[in-house]
Amino acid sequence: MWSNSIGKAFSVTCFGESHGPAVGVIIDGCPAGLQLNADDIQRLLAQRIPVEREVVSSRREPDMVEIFSGTFQDLTTGAPITLHIKNQDTRSADYDKMKDTVRPGHADYPAKVKYGGFSDYRGGGRLSGRMTAAFVAAGAVAKKLLTTFGVEVISYTHSIGGLHSEKSPSDNDVRELTYQNSMRCPDLTLADRMRDAVMQAKAEGDSLGGIVECRVNNLPVGVGEPLFDSIDAEIAKIIFGIPAVKGIEFGAGFESSKLKGSENNDQFILREGKIVTVTNNSGGVLGGMSTGMPLVFRTAFKPPSSIAKEQKTVNVSKMEESVIEVRGRHDPCVVPKAVPVVQAMVSICIADLMIRGGMIPRVLKS
Amino acid sequence: MWSNSIGKAFSVTCFGESHGPAVGVIIDGCPAGLQLNADDIQRLLAQRIPVEREVVSSRREPDMVEIFSGTFQDLTTGAPITLHIKNQDTRSADYDKMKDTVRPGHADYPAKVKYGGFSDYRGGGRLSGRMTAAFVAAGAVAKKLLTTFGVEVISYTHSIGGLHSEKSPSDNDVRELTYQNSMRCPDLTLADRMRDAVMQAKAEGDSLGGIVECRVNNLPVGVGEPLFDSIDAEIAKIIFGIPAVKGIEFGAGFESSKLKGSENNDQFILREGKIVTVTNNSGGVLGGMSTGMPLVFRTAFKPPSSIAKEQKTVNVSKMEESVIEVRGRHDPCVVPKAVPVVQAMVSICIADLMIRGGMIPRVLKS
Amino acid sequence: MWSNSIGKAFSVTCFGESHGPAVGVIIDGCPAGLQLNADDIQRLLAQRIPVEREVVSSRREPDMVEIFSGTFQDLTTGAPITLHIKNQDTRSADYDKMKDTVRPGHADYPAKVKYGGFSDYRGGGRLSGRMTAAFVAAGAVAKKLLTTFGVEVISYTHSIGGLHSEKSPSDNDVRELTYQNSMRCPDLTLADRMRDAVMQAKAEGDSLGGIVECRVNNLPVGVGEPLFDSIDAEIAKIIFGIPAVKGIEFGAGFESSKLKGSENNDQFILREGKIVTVTNNSGGVLGGMSTGMPLVFRTAFKPPSSIAKEQKTVNVSKMEESVIEVRGRHDPCVVPKAVPVVQAMVSICIADLMIRGGMIPRVLKS
Amino acid sequence: MWSNSIGKAFSVTCFGESHGPAVGVIIDGCPAGLQLNADDIQRLLAQRIPVEREVVSSRREPDMVEIFSGTFQDLTTGAPITLHIKNQDTRSADYDKMKDTVRPGHADYPAKVKYGGFSDYRGGGRLSGRMTAAFVAAGAVAKKLLTTFGVEVISYTHSIGGLHSEKSPSDNDVRELTYQNSMRCPDLTLADRMRDAVMQAKAEGDSLGGIVECRVNNLPVGVGEPLFDSIDAEIAKIIFGIPAVKGIEFGAGFESSKLKGSENNDQFILREGKIVTVTNNSGGVLGGMSTGMPLVFRTAFKPPSSIAKEQKTVNVSKMEESVIEVRGRHDPCVVPKAVPVVQAMVSICIADLMIRGGMIPRVLKS
Repeated sequence: MWSNSIGKAFSVTCFGESHGPAVGVIIDGCPAGLQLNADDIQRLLAQRIPVEREVVSSRREPDMVEIFSGTFQDLTTGAPITLHIKNQDTRSADYDKMKDTVRPGHADYPAKVKYGGFSDYRGGGRLSGRMTAAFVAAGAVAKKLLTTFGVEVISYTHSIGGLHSEKSPSDNDVRELTYQNSMRCPDLTLADRMRDAVMQAKAEGDSLGGIVECRVNNLPVGVGEPLFDSIDAEIAKIIFGIPAVKGIEFGAGFESSKLKGSENNDQFILREGKIVTVTNNSGGVLGGMSTGMPLVFRTAFKPPSSIAKEQKTVNVSKMEESVIEVRGRHDPCVVPKAVPVVQAMVSICIADLMIRGGMIPRVLKS
Repeated sequence: MWSNSIGKAFSVTCFGESHGPAVGVIIDGCPAGLQLNADDIQRLLAQRIPVEREVVSSRREPDMVEIFSGTFQDLTTGAPITLHIKNQDTRSADYDKMKDTVRPGHADYPAKVKYGGFSDYRGGGRLSGRMTAAFVAAGAVAKKLLTTFGVEVISYTHSIGGLHSEKSPSDNDVRELTYQNSMRCPDLTLADRMRDAVMQAKAEGDSLGGIVECRVNNLPVGVGEPLFDSIDAEIAKIIFGIPAVKGIEFGAGFESSKLKGSENNDQFILREGKIVTVTNNSGGVLGGMSTGMPLVFRTAFKPPSSIAKEQKTVNVSKMEESVIEVRGRHDPCVVPKAVPVVQAMVSICIADLMIRGGMIPRVLKS
Repeated sequence: MWSNSIGKAFSVTCFGESHGPAVGVIIDGCPAGLQLNADDIQRLLAQRIPVEREVVSSRREPDMVEIFSGTFQDLTTGAPITLHIKNQDTRSADYDKMKDTVRPGHADYPAKVKYGGFSDYRGGGRLSGRMTAAFVAAGAVAKKLLTTFGVEVISYTHSIGGLHSEKSPSDNDVRELTYQNSMRCPDLTLADRMRDAVMQAKAEGDSLGGIVECRVNNLPVGVGEPLFDSIDAEIAKIIFGIPAVKGIEFGAGFESSKLKGSENNDQFILREGKIVTVTNNSGGVLGGMSTGMPLVFRTAFKPPSSIAKEQKTVNVSKMEESVIEVRGRHDPCVVPKAVPVVQAMVSICIADLMIRGGMIPRVLKS
Repeated sequence: MWSNSIGKAFSVTCFGESHGPAVGVIIDGCPAGLQLNADDIQRLLAQRIPVEREVVSSRREPDMVEIFSGTFQDLTTGAPITLHIKNQDTRSADYDKMKDTVRPGHADYPAKVKYGGFSDYRGGGRLSGRMTAAFVAAGAVAKKLLTTFGVEVISYTHSIGGLHSEKSPSDNDVRELTYQNSMRCPDLTLADRMRDAVMQAKAEGDSLGGIVECRVNNLPVGVGEPLFDSIDAEIAKIIFGIPAVKGIEFGAGFESSKLKGSENNDQFILREGKIVTVTNNSGGVLGGMSTGMPLVFRTAFKPPSSIAKEQKTVNVSKMEESVIEVRGRHDPCVVPKAVPVVQAMVSICIADLMIRGGMIPRVLKS
């Protein structure tokens, strides 16, 4: 009825509820010998929440992480790593009236049917965006592991409400500029326009969606386990674990469906003794395995479903039509918050696949 | 290194190679009491290959399926079902010269690096589109099971080479017209234009991609196991197991990233005592669970990588630049073949999730 | 390298180290709607440690459990249940000298070879009997669930150091008398003799082993999933997860290897309209499934390996022969502590199999 | 409801029914580069059936194995290996009358309750000893793999009907003499006595049980994945997958429960620069990991339940008491047949654990 674990070798089990005592993860399968302390995780957790608080929900969580197991003298031991984040700023009363009147665009209706009367409905309970704090904590460990093996995972806001740049930002701009603005967009002029759009939507009691692009650099060739646990399949699966995702495409993606083979194929050449491709329409994936070129994918996020405008809905207990205006503390756009979450999720996925493929050993060299 | 099984409750393990003795599957977890004989499977296998053979590869496989276990008196017993399809029309010599010169767009290069010298490279070996025959066989069993519970899975060619209709075909047209033409497109005028485009690409030694749309009707509410095995995540994962897939989107998909919440949210109303939504931008998925509305998703296929045009490549043994023209028996467009494959894969996925969710029992009523 | 989870439907993941901040579990898959609070767990945790403290190790842990997720208003929600037990009475310095001189009978030597330099060796680290506190906490939840369905799990000390009774105690004696003495033996005269033997072994710097018998009453017929996850196979596996176990037998067990079929077969009769067997040599298991008769098995525990007597050993860093006397806080006999641990482990196993077999639903009736 | 796969890295899925078209396995995860052809498997399959046919059931199966996938040029590729054994000598009519009258000691009763009306009941269907042919085929591949890494698995009949030798046979006798007699006992005098006992039981329409001992030599230190997939837990689990097993013990086993720590502990010394233990009461297992000493365990088999003597039973359709004499083709003692089955099962288990522990690579050196 619930599925709470992801990854076969680097396996992450997520626990907690939005308004329960805590959220967190157990990471099972992290190699022994990785330097790790709470600060490493805290740094990435901080990226989730823009400094400029008016663009996001007003819920204020300090998101302090504690490590309860799996490290000894600030090194991982190979044993399960427990990461624990207390919930502190919960206002459960906000949600009482929503018990029966299902919010359009939210999980309320199918959750009610599926999980019945025992669920913790406060703040979405287990189906809350709050879980992404736990994802980012786990992703921080994965990212640290990948960095040790030279693999870089970066992501940024590609578009919000349809606003985007024609030209793709350089890796360097993504690294340097993404977290310098609350939109997580490395094109600072575009970021300003995005911010205006978000603030206007907020003012109107409305919300905006957008697209996050993610790049994984310096992957070895052959990451991914065909037939079914191919790199694109595994990334797609974990990314759809993030609330509000509606689509994913690799490389040229949907555009490649319009191209001819002779236009779309990435031809092989040698450059400095290395096999590379002239183009990267494949997004760094062939046959479900990494090619050694940058892995590139984009994820579409719908606009948040909590809006202050009046919407038609149904009271599912009385089976009566009704209307709702969703009040409370909500994000006018989740894309900026999603940027580090996408990064975290794909880091977990790549770490898992590299361990499975024998590219990361179970015990690191000391 | 390989991942050969998909599904946790209705689990399919695929075996075989393109030019080995056979391909097939073991289905573990099919409920007991389902009427099943080889003909049920044969019918769907036949849909894979258009009658009009010039639009597809000239390899001719009779694709006769045998059931080796798991049924008794034409009823499933709950024990593993083994489906076996002999390979008959193999021309392995075609592939000898490609051992070292990697084909652009194919898995050759990462497979060589990952699997080294022991792989069966003939016809792509394990990474061949030939595996989709086994997928369709397994999907036929899943589809039969779903039909028993009133769930309908249909799919059709939405576009080829960018050619598509502005208007979405009715379910009825999809049911009636899809397999009446070799493009698997229910808009017969459009189908003719697609066919012309495919034949012209073939004449030019080139190839075309396209998009397949799939719809699942009459799903109960609450199919999907959040957080990670949500219905969209599981479908995305299994669909990326099909060769040449580059993207997937549900409902309004990438388009929803441009909409406001007030435009994108599907408002709830009552119709004939049932809770439905006015629009279906969500594609029938909220919070990773089915909503009871039709589940709708689109899958982008790239143009086949085997083209007769000269392309740059590298001989990976000699580490020398080279050129290649891929001769042999190839599809100018895989989209028509992919239509029943998408249907098969999503049937497996839905059967698995409905069993996990307790919506299909382990033993059917006799 | 480590395996930290057990159970497929009622899945328990154990975390923590003997001298780390905490030990605990995540239970994934507990049905929704079970009444549960910390007191339910605390009661069983208390059974692990006899009141009469001289018969066990002098380490004093309050073993207070906290529930961090998975319940709402004292009912389980179906979401993961996190149970957390702080470690408080650790004396890590005791173990520094043992880093290189491996203790006979302990995991030190293979652990050193397998896990190398990164392991937390303090108090056995992850391979400590301390983990059994976490097992009992998880088992308490499973036992509560089983009780709801009328299934009773009881266990007792069958023998210590070869001391045992010829006559099997009644279920009622096991229920009433087991925890009234520190040996966990329902035959109180025998319990006294066992206690004397344990105290004498302790005085001699030596230790004693023994046998625990476990009975599961009121099981429905057909619990167990052949071929491989049969009820005996699954119980055997989980029981060998308890430190110091060297053997397991069901029903007549090893004795049945000496019997003729006509002596060993349990003949079927009707009693009060129910199918029962005249004897129960099978221990309630046929073909890997429960028969409806009491499930009965015995587990052999070796004497604890930590003894004060001088033993030959090897310093594995210097590769030199050496001697060792294991000082510190050790149990002269683990059997009394093992009685509730066996019960906990088998409860987890039966809960898992009953959910898998559809005998316990995912959502309990409210 | 069924569990048909065992092993996480070297995973074996078993299919087939006693009287269906075939039995067989898919092995998923066998490393690439292992020399393998059907003869390798045929040799071990032949050991299952003694030449002297009067001591076993009169069903005559040629047990010819075919490899349908996973090898190329007589080397494994890493892809799934399908092994297929046709059933040929089936007499299904023998079983019609047993549909409702459950045989004492067999799985009939719980299987009827659990699997209901759709099961293939002919010859025990899926719960037949016939499955062990498939187990041995899979085990032959595992054994070949282990041999490549110097690991030897041997087994022999330790006792039948209580008849056993006081002195343990040498490894060399086990290797040389076991398969020279139909009892699979390396003590040839004892073998004669066993044979007489079996023939007499047969003459009386009765049956005998016994014990199989298995030894695994040259294991590296550290095989086994604690906490739960320890080497003893994993062996215990897979061994209970063999029909008629009632107990298992490692090293001194149940006897160790009577010893003092100072008697039972295996002290460490150096011999020829290697760490060994003076005794091997542990049976080569400490903390769930191999110690480098021989791994030794014994398995108790009950006497076969099919006996010609009249027994009380119940007709479960009519719910009436009845009597039964089980006629047909049955083994008077399964122990000789079980000797290679135990060997096969433990080989699968050890191969799985050695791959998981990184002691056997995914791609062998060419």
